[in-house]
Formats: sequence, structure tokens, C-alpha cells
Amino acid sequence: MATETKSVSVMTADELLQHWQEHRRLTRRTIEAFPEDKLFQFSIGGMRPFAELAFECINVGMPVVNGVSTGKWEKFAGEKPTTRADLLHLWDEQTAAIDEAFPKIPPHRFAETDTAFGFYTNTGTGMFQYAIDNEIHHRGQGYVYLRALGIEPPHFWERN
Amino acid sequence: MATETKSVSVMTADELLQHWQEHRRLTRRTIEAFPEDKLFQFSIGGMRPFAELAFECINVGMPVVNGVSTGKWEKFAGEKPTTRADLLHLWDEQTAAIDEAFPKIPPHRFAETDTAFGFYTNTGTGMFQYAIDNEIHHRGQGYVYLRALGIEPPHFWERN
Repeated sequence: MATETKSVSVMTADELLQHWQEHRRLTRRTIEAFPEDKLFQFSIGGMRPFAELAFECINVGMPVVNGVSTGKWEKFAGEKPTTRADLLHLWDEQTAAIDEAFPKIPPHRFAETDTAFGFYTNTGTGMFQYAIDNEIHHRGQGYVYLRALGIEPPHFWERN
Repeated sequence: MATETKSVSVMTADELLQHWQEHRRLTRRTIEAFPEDKLFQFSIGGMRPFAELAFECINVGMPVVNGVSTGKWEKFAGEKPTTRADLLHLWDEQTAAIDEAFPKIPPHRFAETDTAFGFYTNTGTGMFQYAIDNEIHHRGQGYVYLRALGIEPPHFWERN
């Protein structure tokens, strides 16, 4: 790779945060698109219902922001929501918490390698990428659930 | 956001390329996991079969690299594959072509805004992100197809 291109910066911390929050808004709309009973009960091929997949995203949301920020890896301590309203409320709490905590991450931590929760080793940036990619992956699965239920999913390209 | 954190670079062009190729390797394994007839025929809820979703990724692969690189937006000119072997062959051709062309992208094009194919406006980096995110999204859907077929998908975290 040409040295100049290879090392050019293509993303800032703020752009990474905005990218994540764009995806989080789309995932929120996907949660909303499910009828409440289907959100917690419907699945295909023995997979988890979408509420469980969304809760997984909550489990790797703020805990990863805190871990990258401080080096302390503590699991999400809250209860698993049992209603769509509670799930959305928890989602919104994390949206605000991420917006508050992300800007305070010490700059050097993005490139620094750490081990999350005792088993996942990556750079800070790599951990955020994994969290975002995992959310996109599971949300895509939620789209199939919605289609199987005859429900139109939100537009993939709308992130506002 | 603290100015220092906000503007810190969290990714280089080479890291973006490697991240994309890691995902492309996982998508290749997902294509391989489908029996040939199911790859082209199986779907859920009126969606497209996985071969079509993978071909969409090919349509936004090299054409986007070329477009960001040169400002010329030309659609993929090849034929749509009709066998798994042809699809994988095309995938591998693009893997090599992306590795060849990406490093030659002029550095300033990553931050520059352009309009792809006459309708999609974003920065160069944003266009690559969209291509990667779209691939993750559709691959997640392929995982549901595989599970519905009783087939274990490849591990999401394996990217080598």
C-alpha cells in the first residue's frame, strides 16, 4: 500500500461515535416495529427472539465504553427488560450515557490493546467496531423476522 | 466532546481495508455454507435468496473503490453468477482487485464528499462504511436462512 494512503486517517473519534449512534437509532426503530408479543417470542430456526438480540447490544454498549475508557470491564448490571417500553427506555438511557461518556475516553485508548471481560482482545477502536458490527448483524436478523411476520422493516439507509 | 478526543484519529485507510477484507472473508464462508440450490432459491418472507444479496455486495464492491478513487461511478459490468462456484470465483476476483486498487486511492478522497451512481451522497469513508455495513446486514440475514435450513453458520468472530 502506498505509504501516504496506508496511514491516512479516515475516521475521528467523533465520527465513530456518530456512526454508532446512527446505527443505534435504526436499531431502536427496528425494536419499535415489532408487535410486543413477537418481540419477545418470535424467532426462526431456534434463534433468539429480537428482544434478546437487542438486549445483547445493551450488554456490549455502555460496558464497552466504560471498559475502553477506564480499563475496568464490568458487565451490565441492570435487569433484562420484559416489555417493549422497558427495552426502549433502557435503549434511550444508554444513548444518553454513551453520548456523555464517549467524549471522555482518553485519546490513547482507541489504539491501545486491552482484553474485554477477560476474553476478547482488541484495540479500543476494534472493540467499538465489533459492538457496531454485532448490532448490524443482529438487526439484519430482526429484519428477516419482521419480513416473516409480514411487517415492513425500517429503511436501512435512514439513520436520523 | 473534549476537543482532543473528538478529533483523534481512530482508523487509518489500511485498517479500513483490512476491516472490510475480514468481513469479506466471513461473507465468503457464508456463501460456501449454503447448499447450491438453497443459495439461489431459498428465502424467507419474500426476501431475495442469499446469492442475490451476495451479488449486491459485489455490485457495491469494486465499483465503489473505483468511484471513490477516480470520481467516475460505473456500475459492475459482469454477468450475474448462476452457480456457487462462479459466485465464489467472482468474489475472489474482487478480493484481489480491492487489495490492488484501494491503496491507490488518493488520500484526500476519504474525507471528500461525492455522489455515487447519481444518487448516494457521502464522504469516501462513509461510502466504504455503507458498503461494509450493508454486507454485514445482508450476511446476518443469510445466517437466519442457514438456521432455518438447519445449517450452522460460520462463527461471526472468525475473520481470517
